[in-house]
Amino acid sequence: LFSNEEIMKMSVLQEINPNVRNMKPLEYSILAGRLSQIKEELRQGVKKPYQEVLDVYMGDPHKGGVKPLSFVRQVLAACLYPQLVNSSKLPADVRQRAQRLLGRCDGGSVGSYTATRGIPETLIRVSEFITRRDGGVPSNPENIFLSPGSQWSLSILHVLLNPESSPRNGVLSPVPCHNTTTMSVTGLGAVVVPYYLSEEQGWELQVEELHRAMESAKGVCNPIALYIVNPGNPDGHVQSRKSMQEVIRFVSERKLFLLADEVYQDYVFGENSEFVSYKRVLSEMGPPLSDTVELASFHSASKGWMGECGLRTGYMELVNLDPAVMKHIFTMFSTDTCAPVLGQIALDLMLNPPQPGEPSYPLYHMETQNIKNTLAGNGKRAVEVVNSLPGLCCQPLEGGAFAFPKVYLPPSFIQKAKEAGLEPDTFYCSRLLDEAGLLVGPGTEYGQKEGTYHIRFCILTSAEIMEEVLTRLTCFHKQFMKDFS
Amino acid sequence: LFSNEEIMKMSVLQEINPNVRNMKPLEYSILAGRLSQIKEELRQGVKKPYQEVLDVYMGDPHKGGVKPLSFVRQVLAACLYPQLVNSSKLPADVRQRAQRLLGRCDGGSVGSYTATRGIPETLIRVSEFITRRDGGVPSNPENIFLSPGSQWSLSILHVLLNPESSPRNGVLSPVPCHNTTTMSVTGLGAVVVPYYLSEEQGWELQVEELHRAMESAKGVCNPIALYIVNPGNPDGHVQSRKSMQEVIRFVSERKLFLLADEVYQDYVFGENSEFVSYKRVLSEMGPPLSDTVELASFHSASKGWMGECGLRTGYMELVNLDPAVMKHIFTMFSTDTCAPVLGQIALDLMLNPPQPGEPSYPLYHMETQNIKNTLAGNGKRAVEVVNSLPGLCCQPLEGGAFAFPKVYLPPSFIQKAKEAGLEPDTFYCSRLLDEAGLLVGPGTEYGQKEGTYHIRFCILTSAEIMEEVLTRLTCFHKQFMKDFS
Repeated sequence: LFSNEEIMKMSVLQEINPNVRNMKPLEYSILAGRLSQIKEELRQGVKKPYQEVLDVYMGDPHKGGVKPLSFVRQVLAACLYPQLVNSSKLPADVRQRAQRLLGRCDGGSVGSYTATRGIPETLIRVSEFITRRDGGVPSNPENIFLSPGSQWSLSILHVLLNPESSPRNGVLSPVPCHNTTTMSVTGLGAVVVPYYLSEEQGWELQVEELHRAMESAKGVCNPIALYIVNPGNPDGHVQSRKSMQEVIRFVSERKLFLLADEVYQDYVFGENSEFVSYKRVLSEMGPPLSDTVELASFHSASKGWMGECGLRTGYMELVNLDPAVMKHIFTMFSTDTCAPVLGQIALDLMLNPPQPGEPSYPLYHMETQNIKNTLAGNGKRAVEVVNSLPGLCCQPLEGGAFAFPKVYLPPSFIQKAKEAGLEPDTFYCSRLLDEAGLLVGPGTEYGQKEGTYHIRFCILTSAEIMEEVLTRLTCFHKQFMKDFS
Repeated sequence: LFSNEEIMKMSVLQEINPNVRNMKPLEYSILAGRLSQIKEELRQGVKKPYQEVLDVYMGDPHKGGVKPLSFVRQVLAACLYPQLVNSSKLPADVRQRAQRLLGRCDGGSVGSYTATRGIPETLIRVSEFITRRDGGVPSNPENIFLSPGSQWSLSILHVLLNPESSPRNGVLSPVPCHNTTTMSVTGLGAVVVPYYLSEEQGWELQVEELHRAMESAKGVCNPIALYIVNPGNPDGHVQSRKSMQEVIRFVSERKLFLLADEVYQDYVFGENSEFVSYKRVLSEMGPPLSDTVELASFHSASKGWMGECGLRTGYMELVNLDPAVMKHIFTMFSTDTCAPVLGQIALDLMLNPPQPGEPSYPLYHMETQNIKNTLAGNGKRAVEVVNSLPGLCCQPLEGGAFAFPKVYLPPSFIQKAKEAGLEPDTFYCSRLLDEAGLLVGPGTEYGQKEGTYHIRFCILTSAEIMEEVLTRLTCFHKQFMKDFS
């Protein structure tokens, strides 16, 4: 039945952590392998219908041609190489800012470790930002942790999830959802309990569906947390206050910890959409809810208008946690010393941008407005083009950095995918990559209702790249529909 | 017996992950609290016998007055703010290097994500460095993972440790040892099996002690890995080839995974000491050992001569792992997207410094030689001064960034510590901080034989700061011995 080698492998794998064994590898790794091959072929002069590959798989604005913000880069460069602080080539406020930020670093160097939760003054700046954003709702710097990215913040689950509990702990998680969350929950030995966002209603979160999901967990696991992404990734929905209030009542009744991934809070462009934080809505609802619902909210330097994904820094704010539990969270975080220092500084800049009257303000304002307008324009244009194509259908986008259209795949194509050993939408993406040089994500990576297929692509790119993405998608898809119908 | 509030707390804590609950908080947090108070008091003008606190608790060279390397900072600044690439103020090789490194970043920006394991070209540079270092032993870039720091690399234990195994998995770990390792192992639900380094023999690792530790684990846990720190932290010992060969035979016989923390590989200054990597010794021993012993080796951008702790990047090389297990390791690492990009670039620079003939070479050479000489000088001076004091005794230092002298604490002092609710050596450190404004680490943080006490302090500081550290220690300790004998 099995070769000796196969039996060897099975026994080796038997010994590793079964929770890690259960983590489903990313579909991305299949496509990334092909991407490298194609790049290599292009380098070697192999002729293809495109000169270079467009990669809009991830939410990675700089990769998509969005330019970094000058102010942010100038301050960071001056912090790294302080001789620049005295250079007349940099605006005065950049130099002052760099000097002030360096003064908060031990030894005056961004090369020193910081306190575990982050530079104390930066924690205060983060809490002040949150208070401003939430119309005065107070934020305590002691509840804030700077971390190497918002995904990493999810390691708070390591504290909350008890691997020894029986039945296992569960986490209610949206479908579709940013894929690494599911992986993290599985890796920690907990069960992902899917709740489906309603595609027909523009990917709305419906509280009845949360109740259904809780029911579905009976006999399987004991849900202890609800994970929410707002604005949505990959779906682009922005929750209404009313929906958030329902969610808060739900987690309170069911005694669930609320994990709110709010990293796309700046990216809201729907005409009647507005970002409101869970912290704010919770506070507005008053006691007893505002004193009892346990909440963790995430934000990231990878997002906002600067989009500095490479710096790997985010923050987490914890609300209503028991001080005894906070101590254990602190202990767990202290094993990693601290978040990247340049990322901490970037976060400080992101939340405290130049103000009117300061020398850097006009350029900063122009650059961020451009990105804002481009994102809104790209969102509109993507929906328009996608919906003009047969077999593709995209819900209106209100926010976030992605489009997630449904794609109809004919049975003959699904058959071919099976023969290739790939999920049907991964196979679609793989052909799109091969034939049009365009890399997008398959819906199967993010979860979807059985029998439906989707693709995801980043819309936070330059307008030119967005246009080229849509052109390639259009050409490929029209030919695809001809070939398979 | 308990108040209502206490019972509430217990029940809340009951629900969290017991492995996290078992993580012992760092002694550092006790001392850091006091440090903040003192800093605040000094700011408010409270008179103390010192004007500022010297903090040599961590291995943090920039905090200790070591200057960052100009070449590294210039290249990083130019990568962040590429207008500088065209500035005539930067040496030509800096500008070329920055341009080449930026060419490897998607969208030409350090703000883009990289591949999960790191920038492909940088992985090749790392493998080339390893091959050079190890006298030609080949290194496969596919076995290298860039990570947010070497402590983070330890999350490979998350793959290796099976939380469901009975008895529990164990990890043999040295005493004394860098504290966060113990915390990580505990947090993953495994058992730390201590093996004691021999202080009397200059903190030598003795293989008989490894056998004793294995025996001690019987009925308690099933050891699956051996963790080694070479050069030693906090002990400053550098292992001999012979000792390493014994270790390799031991792990092979006992079927243990070998985790080699080799982040201090550059810091070797003992007259007859030399750093040799475990990978190299393993290769020299030939088959079957060289084909079968599973090894993970760690290095870090926080160490080396640049000491860029704030960038939070390191690498891990894996040797002899089953490809099926490698796949799962890759999947686990892919949840975190990638290591900080500026850290990846710094690592590239650290392993590929300027060469003779290049414009930046003379300054780079001078700066690194200065740090090298300072470290060796500090090590010698620290041992000399410490050993001249009654009740303090430091083994000769051969490498690493720390001194870890034994301190004799009189019974009357131990009694006072008990009354204060502190470990005796933490109490010693707390008084040293209060009275002399000097922050060092207590031995209890790193582990020590029962009934012995130690302190740890970083010797990778400027010569001036080292002298001031030793002066403060001397003054305090002389008074301390008067007061308590």
